[in-house]
Amino acid sequence: MSRKPDLRVGMIGTGFMGKAHAFGFAAAPKVFDLGQDVVLDMVADVTEEAAAKAARAYGFERATTDWREIVADPAIDIVSITAPNALHKEMSLAAIAAGKHVYCEKPLAPLAVDAAEMTAEAEAAGVKTQVGFNYLCNPMLALAREMIAAGELGEILGYRGIHAEDYMADPASPFTFRHDPEGGGALADLGSHALATAEYLVGPISEVMGDCVTMIGTRSGRRVEVDDVGRAFLRFENGASGSIEGNWISTGRKMQHDFEVYGTKGALCFTQERLNELHHFDAGLPVGRQGFRRIEAGPANPPYGQFIAAAGHQIGFNDLKTIEVAGYIRAISGAEPEPFNFRAGLRIQTLVETIQASSRERFWRAI
Amino acid sequence: MSRKPDLRVGMIGTGFMGKAHAFGFAAAPKVFDLGQDVVLDMVADVTEEAAAKAARAYGFERATTDWREIVADPAIDIVSITAPNALHKEMSLAAIAAGKHVYCEKPLAPLAVDAAEMTAEAEAAGVKTQVGFNYLCNPMLALAREMIAAGELGEILGYRGIHAEDYMADPASPFTFRHDPEGGGALADLGSHALATAEYLVGPISEVMGDCVTMIGTRSGRRVEVDDVGRAFLRFENGASGSIEGNWISTGRKMQHDFEVYGTKGALCFTQERLNELHHFDAGLPVGRQGFRRIEAGPANPPYGQFIAAAGHQIGFNDLKTIEVAGYIRAISGAEPEPFNFRAGLRIQTLVETIQASSRERFWRAI
Amino acid sequence: MSRKPDLRVGMIGTGFMGKAHAFGFAAAPKVFDLGQDVVLDMVADVTEEAAAKAARAYGFERATTDWREIVADPAIDIVSITAPNALHKEMSLAAIAAGKHVYCEKPLAPLAVDAAEMTAEAEAAGVKTQVGFNYLCNPMLALAREMIAAGELGEILGYRGIHAEDYMADPASPFTFRHDPEGGGALADLGSHALATAEYLVGPISEVMGDCVTMIGTRSGRRVEVDDVGRAFLRFENGASGSIEGNWISTGRKMQHDFEVYGTKGALCFTQERLNELHHFDAGLPVGRQGFRRIEAGPANPPYGQFIAAAGHQIGFNDLKTIEVAGYIRAISGAEPEPFNFRAGLRIQTLVETIQASSRERFWRAI
Amino acid sequence: MSRKPDLRVGMIGTGFMGKAHAFGFAAAPKVFDLGQDVVLDMVADVTEEAAAKAARAYGFERATTDWREIVADPAIDIVSITAPNALHKEMSLAAIAAGKHVYCEKPLAPLAVDAAEMTAEAEAAGVKTQVGFNYLCNPMLALAREMIAAGELGEILGYRGIHAEDYMADPASPFTFRHDPEGGGALADLGSHALATAEYLVGPISEVMGDCVTMIGTRSGRRVEVDDVGRAFLRFENGASGSIEGNWISTGRKMQHDFEVYGTKGALCFTQERLNELHHFDAGLPVGRQGFRRIEAGPANPPYGQFIAAAGHQIGFNDLKTIEVAGYIRAISGAEPEPFNFRAGLRIQTLVETIQASSRERFWRAI
Repeated sequence: MSRKPDLRVGMIGTGFMGKAHAFGFAAAPKVFDLGQDVVLDMVADVTEEAAAKAARAYGFERATTDWREIVADPAIDIVSITAPNALHKEMSLAAIAAGKHVYCEKPLAPLAVDAAEMTAEAEAAGVKTQVGFNYLCNPMLALAREMIAAGELGEILGYRGIHAEDYMADPASPFTFRHDPEGGGALADLGSHALATAEYLVGPISEVMGDCVTMIGTRSGRRVEVDDVGRAFLRFENGASGSIEGNWISTGRKMQHDFEVYGTKGALCFTQERLNELHHFDAGLPVGRQGFRRIEAGPANPPYGQFIAAAGHQIGFNDLKTIEVAGYIRAISGAEPEPFNFRAGLRIQTLVETIQASSRERFWRAI
Repeated sequence: MSRKPDLRVGMIGTGFMGKAHAFGFAAAPKVFDLGQDVVLDMVADVTEEAAAKAARAYGFERATTDWREIVADPAIDIVSITAPNALHKEMSLAAIAAGKHVYCEKPLAPLAVDAAEMTAEAEAAGVKTQVGFNYLCNPMLALAREMIAAGELGEILGYRGIHAEDYMADPASPFTFRHDPEGGGALADLGSHALATAEYLVGPISEVMGDCVTMIGTRSGRRVEVDDVGRAFLRFENGASGSIEGNWISTGRKMQHDFEVYGTKGALCFTQERLNELHHFDAGLPVGRQGFRRIEAGPANPPYGQFIAAAGHQIGFNDLKTIEVAGYIRAISGAEPEPFNFRAGLRIQTLVETIQASSRERFWRAI
Repeated sequence: MSRKPDLRVGMIGTGFMGKAHAFGFAAAPKVFDLGQDVVLDMVADVTEEAAAKAARAYGFERATTDWREIVADPAIDIVSITAPNALHKEMSLAAIAAGKHVYCEKPLAPLAVDAAEMTAEAEAAGVKTQVGFNYLCNPMLALAREMIAAGELGEILGYRGIHAEDYMADPASPFTFRHDPEGGGALADLGSHALATAEYLVGPISEVMGDCVTMIGTRSGRRVEVDDVGRAFLRFENGASGSIEGNWISTGRKMQHDFEVYGTKGALCFTQERLNELHHFDAGLPVGRQGFRRIEAGPANPPYGQFIAAAGHQIGFNDLKTIEVAGYIRAISGAEPEPFNFRAGLRIQTLVETIQASSRERFWRAI
Repeated sequence: MSRKPDLRVGMIGTGFMGKAHAFGFAAAPKVFDLGQDVVLDMVADVTEEAAAKAARAYGFERATTDWREIVADPAIDIVSITAPNALHKEMSLAAIAAGKHVYCEKPLAPLAVDAAEMTAEAEAAGVKTQVGFNYLCNPMLALAREMIAAGELGEILGYRGIHAEDYMADPASPFTFRHDPEGGGALADLGSHALATAEYLVGPISEVMGDCVTMIGTRSGRRVEVDDVGRAFLRFENGASGSIEGNWISTGRKMQHDFEVYGTKGALCFTQERLNELHHFDAGLPVGRQGFRRIEAGPANPPYGQFIAAAGHQIGFNDLKTIEVAGYIRAISGAEPEPFNFRAGLRIQTLVETIQASSRERFWRAI
């Protein structure tokens, strides 16, 4: 097949997520047969030293301290934004205005109203967008979704989702930007992933009842107003009910992005702590042979086979990012729809804000 | 030590729980050094055949078809009630009036108002009472409670409890007495256990927000009004927040009585599916050596050692009943307070009804 | 059905296994419908105090300091021997000579030659015998055996068995009778269980290569000659090959009686640490849906349902003893063959001694 | 720091392991700060089409059908050999003669005598060598080794290792090069990994007793002589004893590279099926708080933190290859010793052949 011209990437921000983006762009064309290459062209950070270091470390050809240079450069096709959340909107709008495809880390912006503006502009400009929700890129989640959609679980009766970590569990840990009301809190930061997974698997949520709680009220002598725990009861459009929780004070939990789905014919359980396993209960098996079956990821679960030829060897967290980037590149080339575009990101923020409002009002809210 | 006179038991009802009671009364004095024996004296069931069969199978000396005979017999010290829920009140009040100690299966009565009357009468009469909440008799729950009380987890930040089974998951399963509004639903039947465990570990609940849902609206052609899933957000008096769920349509789950407790210094996880294990995360261990530690039940966890001299061999569900009975007998002899008396049972029913009311009103409720 | 006359039990020895025997005899007729009752008649221990205490605690009608009194008493049907191993032979032969049924704890005797004599005498006398191998009484092992026998795993290709605990892992723990050459060592004490399970599941072993190692050579200043670890390669008559290990210095292991069986069509895994679970891999399921399935014990796995009416609630270690006793009582009544008689116990001792000899000779040995 | 000149790689073979090598060389300099870059220069395969396709897919600058061209090219620093085992020796010797560093997939050669020649030549030439044993690159194995070396487990009393998969479990699967006597069998193919891990953790093995068994004697109508299962009893120089097994007919197992190590003060358990977890039992904790603790890989376990900034997110199988390549590059630059050079590979083959000989002779053998 004929090769498409290279895609040239400009990246703003060089922290943890910057490394992940750079790595994903480097790996995706090697792991997948995308029909076109990706060139890491220019990287921006606030100091010359940081930018130069990142360029060298991650393999960008050029470095800059002015992110607008990336946006303005006609050679660049994709702008990857891993800068602080408060800057996502300005950067995205500038990049969209310049006709670039935009890959923005979550959340799109602190407020849904801003995310809506970004979405509208991107759609008007016809550029391809992507928001970083890489847990959804797990082949085992694809399997779960496929099994649910195919009716293997029967009618869905119940759902429980959670995303819990412990990076804010120590009351002595300092006040950070994440504790600003604009930072969003645990529901926005982690519960958003639980919500994305819930809708990915079971479909649209129609109504919520929120319970957002600040458990550690003071950090570094400052009052904290954002939630440490954000819970919600859920109603889905298809009639199912369920719950989710986002929690960043769960001592001992490093990656508890879990779900359980129960249907009339079967059930599925998953924990991101063992991201290569999906546990399936099939009520159709004979009594006495039933049980939760630990399905290990393998080539039968695309795109696992792009990484490893044999089942059970396990992909890792960074491989999920590679899958995410590959999907985005295929979307840019027109081969597939965008895996998780700005509109999808906006949807999650709308869910988060509705749950937060419901919690304040102590009453249910429709989406 | 001098032996106390034998305690003579009369039992009403001979089904599954009847067998469990009879077995518990037979086993407790053999497993524990209670200082007195228990005699299975008389058993009542509705037919002569059933009563006689149960007497022979479980070892009762006498059988009757009239439960009032048991209540009236001056030889009998304890009346054990395992008859249908709707009869608990009448039988308990009669037994209390006759000065008997009463051991009643849960729920005490379909309505808290009735449970309150039973409690008041028992307390006025000075008899010893017991309600069957045997999950609380697990040595690993005692360990969890002790660790929390001793501050090993620091300040409690979050709680998640569940009791899910699947005996109502099949939409084709018939309408039964449990689907009557008086039957109570999943919250009353199973969520009550989750609530009991929550308060056992973390202390009194002060406020709730309920979400009770009927997922299978029609069974055997009849409309079902009770909940298949009962969820609640919780506030505890000590400032902790959490959630519980009772669910009888969780396909594949046979005994998911689970909890997770998170504190500033550690965490505990438990599932009744593996009732001899408690998983403990100790944030005080050095980074790089931390992790959830699977503590196996052993003689260090009383009264495990009464059953088995070596750790890790595992007690079973019926042993929990034996522990429950032993505690009740010690309470009757005055050696210890009642483990879970009518007032404790009333408390659970009050929690259940408050959650149900909150769900109807779609608003929070104080207890 | 007409009831048979009561069986009267005399028990020699009142330690841990004595309690287990007494409890099993008390529980079995209540849990199972055996058609006859068991009476705990007389118990013997070396001091009057110990005998009297055991009689009271376990419910025996009479106590004695002379075990020969039990053997001689015409009222007694069954003699239960839980005295030290060195006495098993003398007591068993006396009881057999008196026409009693004999239930002897393992090992039958320190040497296979003695066990052979006991077996021959019992068979000549026509009494029913039983040796305590209660791990085999697990409903999940019955399921495993049934699945293998029915061909659900295809042809058996490999087996791994182990029984590891840690009660000798501390080098400072004192020299005991178990460290005497007559005591047998880890292979005899624990490996014997692994061997019994291996033959129970896969059939007769035909050839072995042993590796018995003393790791802690001195205890309490005395030289230890028995093995702390006893390993063996195995050949089965059906062509399968495998290995077992008995190990009493496995720090942290309390009950690692595990096996894995691999066949051309499937596999089974089990650990006694979670004795209510059997994990099954079915290679006949579609690729992408395969995995080890955690089957939880339930009423579909007899005789689980005699203990608990619902699956997943879990039986315990003592319940295995109750199952063992019930099987023995049914054998005495003629309803079933003996579950694990003296000949079966002799077989295990022959395997143990052959492995020990092979280890000394550093060469394979046929059984 | 000053950058070193780029390292230029020539790769022979483009199959599964070829992709893994190419990916490792591309990723290592991005993930690690190696101080020098790696250029994928030339790739060789037997057909022009295969070579060109691999060049494009993996990002090599040049393609060739003559592997000698790679060896002869003065621009190339490293020759990566992923061709069939039978060619490893010729290619390696040619590359060494040309002064190249050589990275050869395992096994170095079908026979230890050939591996010895390769090792001698490489050492004489002073080139840096590497054999692909990437399971050893797991941060959790490094932790295990460090804990053992630091005495956290006390004196080592026992070891059990296994590497089992199921790619030969189906008797209908065809005869392949792996079934040739030169192919080596399960012990050589998989048991070699178990041996490498055993020595990595516990130190040199001094004596072995082998049990190599062909279970499926005919494939595609041809007689199979290599083992399907290779077991060994082990003695270590430090006095510990243990066992390993290599097995390619373990139906359902995809990556059972497991070990258990028991010492006087603690124990470790690991399964490659969950490669980010190490389970640790610490006998120094108080009784009642002891248990196997699930340590999740995190930045405290170098070089995990090079991949992901937060614990518990999990690295994957391919990341192990990246770690392996990074270690090799550091060795080439002189910063560190070779992680697993030809001499280490030769050691493993010697162990394998000694076990095979022991199995044939049915007697123990010293190494």
